[in-house]
Amino acid sequence: MKTSVISLRRIRDVVTNLSVETLTTAMEQGFIAYSEGRAVVPPVGLLQFEVPPGDTHIKYGFIRGDAVYLIKVATNFYDNPKQGLPSSNGVMLVFDQKTGELLTILLDEGYLTNVRTAVAGAVVAKYLAPSKVNAIGIVGTGTQARMQLQYLKEVVDCRRVYIYGRSKETLQAYVKDMQPYGFEITTTMNLEDITDHCNYIVTTTPSARQLIQADRVKPGMHITAMGADAAGKQELDPIILQRADLVVVDSKAQCIDHGEAYYAIQQEIITPDKLMELGSFIKYGQHRKHDSQITIADLTGVAVQDIQIAKLVYEGGVRNG
Amino acid sequence: MKTSVISLRRIRDVVTNLSVETLTTAMEQGFIAYSEGRAVVPPVGLLQFEVPPGDTHIKYGFIRGDAVYLIKVATNFYDNPKQGLPSSNGVMLVFDQKTGELLTILLDEGYLTNVRTAVAGAVVAKYLAPSKVNAIGIVGTGTQARMQLQYLKEVVDCRRVYIYGRSKETLQAYVKDMQPYGFEITTTMNLEDITDHCNYIVTTTPSARQLIQADRVKPGMHITAMGADAAGKQELDPIILQRADLVVVDSKAQCIDHGEAYYAIQQEIITPDKLMELGSFIKYGQHRKHDSQITIADLTGVAVQDIQIAKLVYEGGVRNG
Repeated sequence: MKTSVISLRRIRDVVTNLSVETLTTAMEQGFIAYSEGRAVVPPVGLLQFEVPPGDTHIKYGFIRGDAVYLIKVATNFYDNPKQGLPSSNGVMLVFDQKTGELLTILLDEGYLTNVRTAVAGAVVAKYLAPSKVNAIGIVGTGTQARMQLQYLKEVVDCRRVYIYGRSKETLQAYVKDMQPYGFEITTTMNLEDITDHCNYIVTTTPSARQLIQADRVKPGMHITAMGADAAGKQELDPIILQRADLVVVDSKAQCIDHGEAYYAIQQEIITPDKLMELGSFIKYGQHRKHDSQITIADLTGVAVQDIQIAKLVYEGGVRNG
Repeated sequence: MKTSVISLRRIRDVVTNLSVETLTTAMEQGFIAYSEGRAVVPPVGLLQFEVPPGDTHIKYGFIRGDAVYLIKVATNFYDNPKQGLPSSNGVMLVFDQKTGELLTILLDEGYLTNVRTAVAGAVVAKYLAPSKVNAIGIVGTGTQARMQLQYLKEVVDCRRVYIYGRSKETLQAYVKDMQPYGFEITTTMNLEDITDHCNYIVTTTPSARQLIQADRVKPGMHITAMGADAAGKQELDPIILQRADLVVVDSKAQCIDHGEAYYAIQQEIITPDKLMELGSFIKYGQHRKHDSQITIADLTGVAVQDIQIAKLVYEGGVRNG
């Protein structure tokens, strides 16, 4: 068996050389396959550790008829930073769907999960961004706060950014990292600055309480909420989903189970039929209808995104590498 | 992250350099940990493919307090031999239980699963073999038929072997492979030769019907049945389990679900309290009591065996390699 092993450095090179259009197109095809029921994605495997606290998720699946299938392992050990180690880590294994051979091991250390999450944000912008974005608002100052903006740059013209964070240090670090991309960045520790100035907002925090209140949301605004990827996490007042003209989710089943939509449905503020799955939305050529619509995207992350990014890196990095 | 990747060749070297005592001791410790409830082994993940037919099992878990945890992937693609490829394949990933870091990738292609299965057979022999084995009977001519005998050699003195198979060609190939180990081998296509001449029998087939009948089983006989590792497989007449003085199983929960014990319990021939778990049996220092006992071991394979073999190879192959 000839298994190739690809380092994080090489993976970064391959991804950097892919156009955002290639990435968003692959992600759109993945979402469509998922919404059409062509993706096989069994329940996530989970290992939990108590001392020190940590967990490991095993996500796996395939798109029927594809050349490959994927097993992804993602680890989180919360005390790692105390030892100077990243808390998140991971690896992706790409297998041949015709023979079961292990084709390649992507030692991505969680990087590809970050990329596919950020690319999904760009896909949402393609279909739901207002025709004129006055300013982009980013809530949070972590990795996704950076990467979402990086990929948005390619699909939204606006270069004015408001960034919300809870400390001056993390805000300054953010500005230092992101200004070189050509953004004009205003920092704030007041969430109302985000809703006052921005009509395209991305929330990227691990928050467990509502950050954006419904009375701050105005016609013509779009919010992508991508922080709430597990039970107990929440970034939006659920009334926002009621006020929204469109609520697009990456996975209906998953968003009914957790994330922003979960709270809105649980509290009977909306019914599940208000949710539109991203793959179906794209497939039927839908877009934001007019500039006074309020649109929400609730992204919780689905394994089909991992499959799509792994395929791109496998094709770009191994076959032609 | 420094992940080492160990090839099959290197893995074979490491295993060959381990004494059978080291291997059986590690396996015994694993079975004890499992029976004591110190092993965390979630349900197996499964992917199934239709065209061509194949499946992939993801087994994962850890022993509390160990340095590492394991994720094992095992693939079976049944049409592979038509293309000259092995039908089984696999990989083991060893992670740090304190940080979640991927320490090593064992590209074992399924070899370590074969080893741990064969070593479990040797463990059973240590505790259940009659004091004098007249002849060893092996049912089946595949990989396990070879490896079980290879490891038995180190724990059972007898060198007389009867081998049962369904074709002269596979029997001749078996003799050619195993004679160099110093065995005096008699081939047969008649199962009664096995039960007539042998008081230590190992069944290693993927059979879906009873091969050994209860009326052929005599006092003083031991049978290890390790072929029935999934639902629908069976090698023994379930009446044998009723007649047996001792029925030892690798996992009570699993053997009640499938394997030889399943059929005996399902048909109300025995009750589950007749099953004794191998780990408990070893822990309490139990052995075959006298040479007229009939003893049965029903082995279905548990993830703790994978954990134990992966640890040995990780320690021998990477740390000191």
